[in-house]
Amino acid sequence: MIVGVGLSRVLEPAGVLPQAAWRLDASPVLGADEVRVRVSRLNLDAASFRQLSGKHGGDGAAVRSEVLEIVGARGKMHNPVTGSGGMLIGVVEEVGPASSLPVRVGDRVATLVSLTLTPLVIDDGLVGWDGLSEQVPASGHAILFGRSVVAVLPDDLAPELALAVFDVCGAPALTDRVVRGHAGPVSVAVLGGAGKSGSLALAAAKAAGARTCGVVVSAAEREALVGAGVADHVAVADARDPVAVAAAVTGALGGPATVTVVCVDVPGCEHGAILATAAGGTVIFFSMATSFPAAALGAEGLAADVTMLVGNGFVPGHAVFAVEVLRRTPGVRALFEARISAD
Amino acid sequence: MIVGVGLSRVLEPAGVLPQAAWRLDASPVLGADEVRVRVSRLNLDAASFRQLSGKHGGDGAAVRSEVLEIVGARGKMHNPVTGSGGMLIGVVEEVGPASSLPVRVGDRVATLVSLTLTPLVIDDGLVGWDGLSEQVPASGHAILFGRSVVAVLPDDLAPELALAVFDVCGAPALTDRVVRGHAGPVSVAVLGGAGKSGSLALAAAKAAGARTCGVVVSAAEREALVGAGVADHVAVADARDPVAVAAAVTGALGGPATVTVVCVDVPGCEHGAILATAAGGTVIFFSMATSFPAAALGAEGLAADVTMLVGNGFVPGHAVFAVEVLRRTPGVRALFEARISAD
Repeated sequence: MIVGVGLSRVLEPAGVLPQAAWRLDASPVLGADEVRVRVSRLNLDAASFRQLSGKHGGDGAAVRSEVLEIVGARGKMHNPVTGSGGMLIGVVEEVGPASSLPVRVGDRVATLVSLTLTPLVIDDGLVGWDGLSEQVPASGHAILFGRSVVAVLPDDLAPELALAVFDVCGAPALTDRVVRGHAGPVSVAVLGGAGKSGSLALAAAKAAGARTCGVVVSAAEREALVGAGVADHVAVADARDPVAVAAAVTGALGGPATVTVVCVDVPGCEHGAILATAAGGTVIFFSMATSFPAAALGAEGLAADVTMLVGNGFVPGHAVFAVEVLRRTPGVRALFEARISAD
Repeated sequence: MIVGVGLSRVLEPAGVLPQAAWRLDASPVLGADEVRVRVSRLNLDAASFRQLSGKHGGDGAAVRSEVLEIVGARGKMHNPVTGSGGMLIGVVEEVGPASSLPVRVGDRVATLVSLTLTPLVIDDGLVGWDGLSEQVPASGHAILFGRSVVAVLPDDLAPELALAVFDVCGAPALTDRVVRGHAGPVSVAVLGGAGKSGSLALAAAKAAGARTCGVVVSAAEREALVGAGVADHVAVADARDPVAVAAAVTGALGGPATVTVVCVDVPGCEHGAILATAAGGTVIFFSMATSFPAAALGAEGLAADVTMLVGNGFVPGHAVFAVEVLRRTPGVRALFEARISAD
């Protein structure tokens, strides 16, 4: 009854979703809507690698053994201590006849869903990996479900750049959809406009015809964002100060924003975003530091008739859309490249 | 620039919102968009009363002294330990010429915003209160801002019943708006359908023309909800079990719901709600136990193209709307009255 989420791959406990399962069936034989990928690299989640490396005192061989042990026992690279996974890169090997994923045999792809729910077999003992970094050269296969999320790596972008874009690709797609869903002239304020998700959200808003205002925390970020050319206005304010944020946005745009997008990964940005948004407008929260009660009770206490969206990281076509935005916006691409080389 | 939220009432620290202020100006002289209420009763927040009573070992006179001390020092009943307030009941005494609140002099009203942001003066030393309960007979005045939320107590409902409805009045109003915003036939699933917010949401959805399914946790709740007559289908499932919830909803409605409303105040209901909702549909989270990351990452991991709303407790006209729904739906009124008499 519930199709495409991999329930048939769950071995134990029965009846839970693959992410919640202890053990998955990673058999290479495909269900009708599944896809098999020949794996070339795993990117372990940073928290997972740190835990493993710490546990084994930096002994790479021991880390490698434990990763092999986890994948062998669970049928997925799901660190039982941190609960986290990572993602993988590979080449599409077989596509089930009923698959609706936008991939073909031979495509070089990255998975955008977590390794914690991806059936995986490693067949080379990870001989190419020294166990000293999160980047794991690997041979094996992985299974994608009907509702997995996967993106083809573009030929014209370095893989690091493409992965950085994929990481935040929900933000521009959802911003585009929300801007186009509002009638009449739309203004958009983005808190954290100089960051990865923020600059892509601004670029998408501008491309959709909105007037844009980026709110940043420092003069350096201000300069970077002005250079990117996607914000009609750039204001400096502490996103945690509701009165300062509302004053900055209404000052720059001549009134509150139709749509406010929160891309600042610090707690306490809810009330400023709500106050900066016009009645009938929309706040999109993309920050994982968002507090649900702070948003719900804040809007109630301010009698703010605003629609508040949990920023869903999945919008159909989001990866292709985000890469398109990056290609069309050299200023944003430069921001991304500067961040990658600084990492 | 930011009007109606009471910034001019903030004495210290300067520049913050009234809720965040240490001290407010509770002077009876009104600003143009303010309203003064003659207070007849405070309802202290349960957490606040419990803390005060515990601190003073149940000594009512000492509790009373401390409440007077807090209101005198802060210009509002904002418990500095719990951070919580409560609400008040009174009669409108004066309405500023620019006020947009839907009240007239002489109206008996309840405030629907917290006492933590409401300027308050007590002038009777709380002589009518023994300090032993959260219900505080009081004389004094309170100030409402342009954007405060206040509701007139209906003549035909007991005050306890009206307050219970006001407490959850955002749920039916937002459900109504979302149902009417979807084109074509709409189906609505409500997790926690037998509760206060859940039963009103179901009644609002049905009145807006939707097919409705209530999901409840026990046979007793099932019986209560069937009796209320607002759910076309009632299913029993643990809202924390994603697969069970999705199976129950799709089984009852013949497919996933267009709109799923979460009214269950326990953690872990995000994934079931997402899985139970059709692509292009909407999930409304009204539970304060909602985890923002669980919702955002859950939808991404399930590749679910659903709009996820933070249930804003404020929708213009919500209190009047909720009372109207209750009046028109005797079965829901009976559910409320049974809960009040059980409390």
